[in-house]
Amino acid sequence: MGAPNPNDLVQRVLAGEIRAGARLMRMVDDRTPGVTEYLKQLHPHTGKASILGITGNPGSGKSTLTDQLIRHYRAMDLRVGVIAVDPSSPFSGGAILGDRIRMMDHATDPNVFIRSVATRGTLGGLSRSTHDMVHILDAMGHDVILVETVGVGQDEIDVMRLAHTSMVVLVPGLGDDIQAIKAGILEIADIFVINKADNPMVDRTIADLRHLQSLVSAHPDWLPPITTTIAIRGEGIDTLTEEITRHRAWLEESDTLSLRTRDRERHILETLIRSQLQEHVQTLLDTKSDAIHESLSEGTLNPYTLSETLLSEMDLLRSVEPGPVEASED
Amino acid sequence: MGAPNPNDLVQRVLAGEIRAGARLMRMVDDRTPGVTEYLKQLHPHTGKASILGITGNPGSGKSTLTDQLIRHYRAMDLRVGVIAVDPSSPFSGGAILGDRIRMMDHATDPNVFIRSVATRGTLGGLSRSTHDMVHILDAMGHDVILVETVGVGQDEIDVMRLAHTSMVVLVPGLGDDIQAIKAGILEIADIFVINKADNPMVDRTIADLRHLQSLVSAHPDWLPPITTTIAIRGEGIDTLTEEITRHRAWLEESDTLSLRTRDRERHILETLIRSQLQEHVQTLLDTKSDAIHESLSEGTLNPYTLSETLLSEMDLLRSVEPGPVEASED
Repeated sequence: MGAPNPNDLVQRVLAGEIRAGARLMRMVDDRTPGVTEYLKQLHPHTGKASILGITGNPGSGKSTLTDQLIRHYRAMDLRVGVIAVDPSSPFSGGAILGDRIRMMDHATDPNVFIRSVATRGTLGGLSRSTHDMVHILDAMGHDVILVETVGVGQDEIDVMRLAHTSMVVLVPGLGDDIQAIKAGILEIADIFVINKADNPMVDRTIADLRHLQSLVSAHPDWLPPITTTIAIRGEGIDTLTEEITRHRAWLEESDTLSLRTRDRERHILETLIRSQLQEHVQTLLDTKSDAIHESLSEGTLNPYTLSETLLSEMDLLRSVEPGPVEASED
Repeated sequence: MGAPNPNDLVQRVLAGEIRAGARLMRMVDDRTPGVTEYLKQLHPHTGKASILGITGNPGSGKSTLTDQLIRHYRAMDLRVGVIAVDPSSPFSGGAILGDRIRMMDHATDPNVFIRSVATRGTLGGLSRSTHDMVHILDAMGHDVILVETVGVGQDEIDVMRLAHTSMVVLVPGLGDDIQAIKAGILEIADIFVINKADNPMVDRTIADLRHLQSLVSAHPDWLPPITTTIAIRGEGIDTLTEEITRHRAWLEESDTLSLRTRDRERHILETLIRSQLQEHVQTLLDTKSDAIHESLSEGTLNPYTLSETLLSEMDLLRSVEPGPVEASED
């Protein structure tokens, strides 16, 4: 096989070729050297997709909802990309699709591209991988990109910051659920979805949520609407997609879109820097592995002193002057 | 007030004084300059506490279980420290104790020290703060330290790696719950606790879990036992604590304890290095903020190129030779 011709692969991705997109994604997964060059070349062709984030606890029905949203946008003849972010083992590195299998109904539709992303055990790695996948789907010409995550950790919050519109999915009657949501996700939700809304507790959940909203106002002039769905029967999806459209219109009219895009790019920049530094530190620690092992097992140095020593030895904490950022030649 | 006399504060922490411990923890929270010096001085006096991790999804009854474990160890006249790790908002930085309020029954017991830790929005920050708090509780002479986290994110997995014995709490009948647990936590669980075991689905949950265990064997010679509890009525706590004792004995007998301690110290070292680098990068990004803003809004540079440029300008990706780690003078 050999390395693909860079221009050729980029052109094929831009033409929306599924095999080329999948290949580039595998290269991202494997951190193939030079993959960043391809991503750079795609950059001028991105920014057209509408990126929708969906999060919620396990069992809230996110995947069924994602499935319904795919159906909705496909009925409008839009191309849909899906990134399923999987919590994965820090040891085996494996991703488990679980009940997302039901999305596989769309596996034969060439206008639906579904990809999972695993954490791979590296801090910041999840957010970075997800960004790169979204970037590729965008360049391939997908109109709508759905990013589905589980839970309320920092990783998931970082991932949700990549979206234009973030939906938080809840189920009625779980006080603890709202408790957890409240803490981490409330402020990043643009739309709340109460799924499984045939549960009699639904009114109580709406009331609880409105109360929480009155305590925390994230956007000065966008009060996140609370929609109800029964995803398994397809009920409430039209109202939900209308709210998504209304949110997008608000983003554009209020100039929040350009602010959010800038915020997003800055966030991506930080993610890239972090993940590169992270990889670098890992290499350095591996290089120094024997010496570290010795110091720790002899008990001659405590981890606090050792970390300072290593950082100073690596000369990583040098200061830098403010000033312009010059593009390096490449 | 002024800065406390370092030796005095360290001596008071080592004497187990609650106000001194609380003060040092606040300094950790605020990242007060010089706080690392205090932590270093505590280091030789740590390593005696038994650190127990407890994790599970919201609603699994972790806090009630923690409360029962506190009662159990207090009845044995042991000093107990509790770190409640709260998912917190990346925007407001606030931590919410939620139903952990029930632990406040112990607020007047001078031999129970309860502290919450929030993520503060920094990658690796949660793990680092938790480690520092555990370190202080250990130095203060607490015999048992309970670390309670929510969920299955990378942050939580990192936090659980600080524990000697990790418990994963499940409730019967949540297939999705097991699905999520399976992905992230299965391999770090030393003991499974099925709480709310008066639910008729409990046998099914045990069978599911045993099946998962047959697929993933984390430790070659420790099969994590599955215990059942009804924490709200205190049922099953004795069996659970016996399993905790049995696990500790196995750790010591099999020499796994020293391996785990070394692994833990290396993990802490990595956490310290990451969090220091993270803070450093944040400072650099702030310093370069105007230039970054300009490049991104003019669209002259894409984030990929920009991150490389910044990293090379900061000279952060220099290579390093393998060799001994020398303590710097301090």
